[in-house]
Amino acid sequence: MKKSLGKGTHAMPTPVWLVGSYDQEGKANLATVAWGGVCSSDPAAVTVSLRKSRHSYDAIMQRKAFTVNIPSQAFVAAADYAGIASGRSADKFAAAGLTSVKSDLVDAPYVAEFPLVLECRLLQVVEIGVHTQFIGEIVDVKADEEVLDDKGNVDPAKVLPLVYSPTNRAYYGLGAVVGQGFEIGKQFMK
Amino acid sequence: MKKSLGKGTHAMPTPVWLVGSYDQEGKANLATVAWGGVCSSDPAAVTVSLRKSRHSYDAIMQRKAFTVNIPSQAFVAAADYAGIASGRSADKFAAAGLTSVKSDLVDAPYVAEFPLVLECRLLQVVEIGVHTQFIGEIVDVKADEEVLDDKGNVDPAKVLPLVYSPTNRAYYGLGAVVGQGFEIGKQFMK
Repeated sequence: MKKSLGKGTHAMPTPVWLVGSYDQEGKANLATVAWGGVCSSDPAAVTVSLRKSRHSYDAIMQRKAFTVNIPSQAFVAAADYAGIASGRSADKFAAAGLTSVKSDLVDAPYVAEFPLVLECRLLQVVEIGVHTQFIGEIVDVKADEEVLDDKGNVDPAKVLPLVYSPTNRAYYGLGAVVGQGFEIGKQFMK
Repeated sequence: MKKSLGKGTHAMPTPVWLVGSYDQEGKANLATVAWGGVCSSDPAAVTVSLRKSRHSYDAIMQRKAFTVNIPSQAFVAAADYAGIASGRSADKFAAAGLTSVKSDLVDAPYVAEFPLVLECRLLQVVEIGVHTQFIGEIVDVKADEEVLDDKGNVDPAKVLPLVYSPTNRAYYGLGAVVGQGFEIGKQFMK
């Protein structure tokens, strides 16, 4: 018997992505989001949702670009910090000991220390209540060579991304492999 | 030094959510998505992206409703199957040994065996290239009592959700807790 919990964002897992942007003064800023995901294969695109009050909101609207920076779990404190502090008063890169690199492709900075980065051109802006959803076309993916496997694919076991659950506000690591996609389900095919 | 991998959906983690809907004949159907996420806190809302060719596309457009069914990792094969097979030719609930329950709140079925279910009313439809993004307002969350903690919150360690990475098409379990949100980052606050 299922219990009704009412309305709420009791979903899981969610990502832990740091959104990079340049503000009006050209200062590099970061905002951590759990509200986001991949939304399209072609064009390759991701979404990140931000409240209008966030410093990054104006930055993305003006520059029409952002990066998605995927931290490894060693950077959990920096990731959390970038979700608590405001770029209006703080230099989050400096405070968290991170290095900003200007993207050659979009008008936004990315995090040198993080293993996986998506450079995004703003594609659409969707208003949904208190949050604004930014849809970004992924114009390039950049990865540290150390997180690639023999075939040049990104290996999650080397990236060690953070996994979040809003239900208890906890960050998790990645667990063990429990199945291969487009394979393990074939047992139910007639 | 980062290596450029070109355009692509090399993001992680992504969720593994089974989208429930009724088709034109009233048959309950499921479609597994990794392209989706939470998109808003108020109204509480989620997104799921589907190609127009998917059987669930017409169903959601017609019924203006869907459910998001979050499997525990024991259901990894069923989750994968619902992403491979088509509801046009298969009864996925029956084939995967799952039970459909009609939602009292929205015109869509949910999976009795899964620990966590979001009942969604279609809010917006956003076209993004080959994928259509459905934004659903979460009108209720239903959870098995067994996955709630002492305070009635949903405990991810009891849900054991699947975590997916499109870079290697692998399903993962949830790893260990590596930090508490809105806490561990305070060390960088001045």
